Amino acid sequence: VAHASDTESKVASPIYGVTIPDGYRQWQLIAPAQEAAPLNELRAVLGNAIAVRAYRDGTLPFPDGTVLAKLAWKHVSSPEFEPATIPGAATTVQFMVKDSNKYAATGGWGFGRFVDGKPADEAQHRTCFACHQARVKNRDFVFTRWAP
Amino acid sequence: VAHASDTESKVASPIYGVTIPDGYRQWQLIAPAQEAAPLNELRAVLGNAIAVRAYRDGTLPFPDGTVLAKLAWKHVSSPEFEPATIPGAATTVQFMVKDSNKYAATGGWGFGRFVDGKPADEAQHRTCFACHQARVKNRDFVFTRWAP
Ligand code: HEC
Ligand code: HEC
Repeated sequence: VAHASDTESKVASPIYGVTIPDGYRQWQLIAPAQEAAPLNELRAVLGNAIAVRAYRDGTLPFPDGTVLAKLAWKHVSSPEFEPATIPGAATTVQFMVKDSNKYAATGGWGFGRFVDGKPADEAQHRTCFACHQARVKNRDFVFTRWAP
Repeated sequence: VAHASDTESKVASPIYGVTIPDGYRQWQLIAPAQEAAPLNELRAVLGNAIAVRAYRDGTLPFPDGTVLAKLAWKHVSSPEFEPATIPGAATTVQFMVKDSNKYAATGGWGFGRFVDGKPADEAQHRTCFACHQARVKNRDFVFTRWAP
């Protein structure tokens, strides 16, 4: 018999134990982004209600319970309109979960990267905080700004 | 004394009388997009609850009450991460509103393009249906597909 905890441990990210939050695809848009070659991706950062409120109020650091999701797709040319680039296949879905106690060692953030619903390996998860810390420590380790 | 109807008529699009719907920035993401030079824009299409349900169920034509919003921003290079392109200043916000009676002459859609909250002129609004009709008539005049 599979227990809930077995299932969860199967889909949790290494190091952080972050799982894919229910309903994240319905969350509000923080901002779209585009990533140059070699990745060639279109992206959208979405946030849960706590995240959106913090953005709106300019609250930094983000409060516990904040979850940010970054969805990424290969980009392809629109078949109906050449100058437009639109999402192709989904590539990764990534999350940052704020829990200042649990993740005290990494700025209060837990990280998770998923491909086809499965977490990426530990080596990849070693890179997350390092990059976010090196570049956006002064904005609570978050790159994305609210798109006006 | 300014009446509500005065205010509304001031901000309604020519030809169609489409106004900016309340709370559209909170709507769910349908898909991001990117537009090549000379526009160089990042875009996001959002939909109201009726639109999202129709996308999810694959309902075509979209039911009355559907509203689609396209938000557009100049794109700029991320100051913290060179390969990433992120939203700069907002450029236009555009809407398509489904009302099969009111807009029977244009496939059931009313169009509105706004810059800084003000509707674009009539000449611009003459172009909307023509382009959508020429290219995506078979998808109820809607370009954007749901991003998986
Ligand atoms: C080489 C640098 C780098 C690494 C490594 C990295 N990120 Fe990021 N991350 C970024 C940049 C740049 C952005 C914002 C621009 C964009 O959307 O690409 C971002 C954005 C995010 C966001 C949206 C919130 C925000 O900060 O804007 C999440 C969630 C995220 N990354 C998760 C992860 C996870 C999980 C990992 C590791 C498995 C990871 N990142 C590794 C550079 C990095
Ligand atoms: C030259 C062609 C062209 C014209 C003219 C045009 N559109 Fe579009 N429109 C597009 C394309 C292509 C997309 C989808 C790709 C994108 O996001 O740029 C789109 C997308 C949209 C969307 C999102 C729903 C969808 O169909 O994907 C709205 C809303 C919209 N347009 C409104 C307008 C309005 C309002 C006008 C006129 C004031 C207008 N459009 C004129 C080509 C056009």
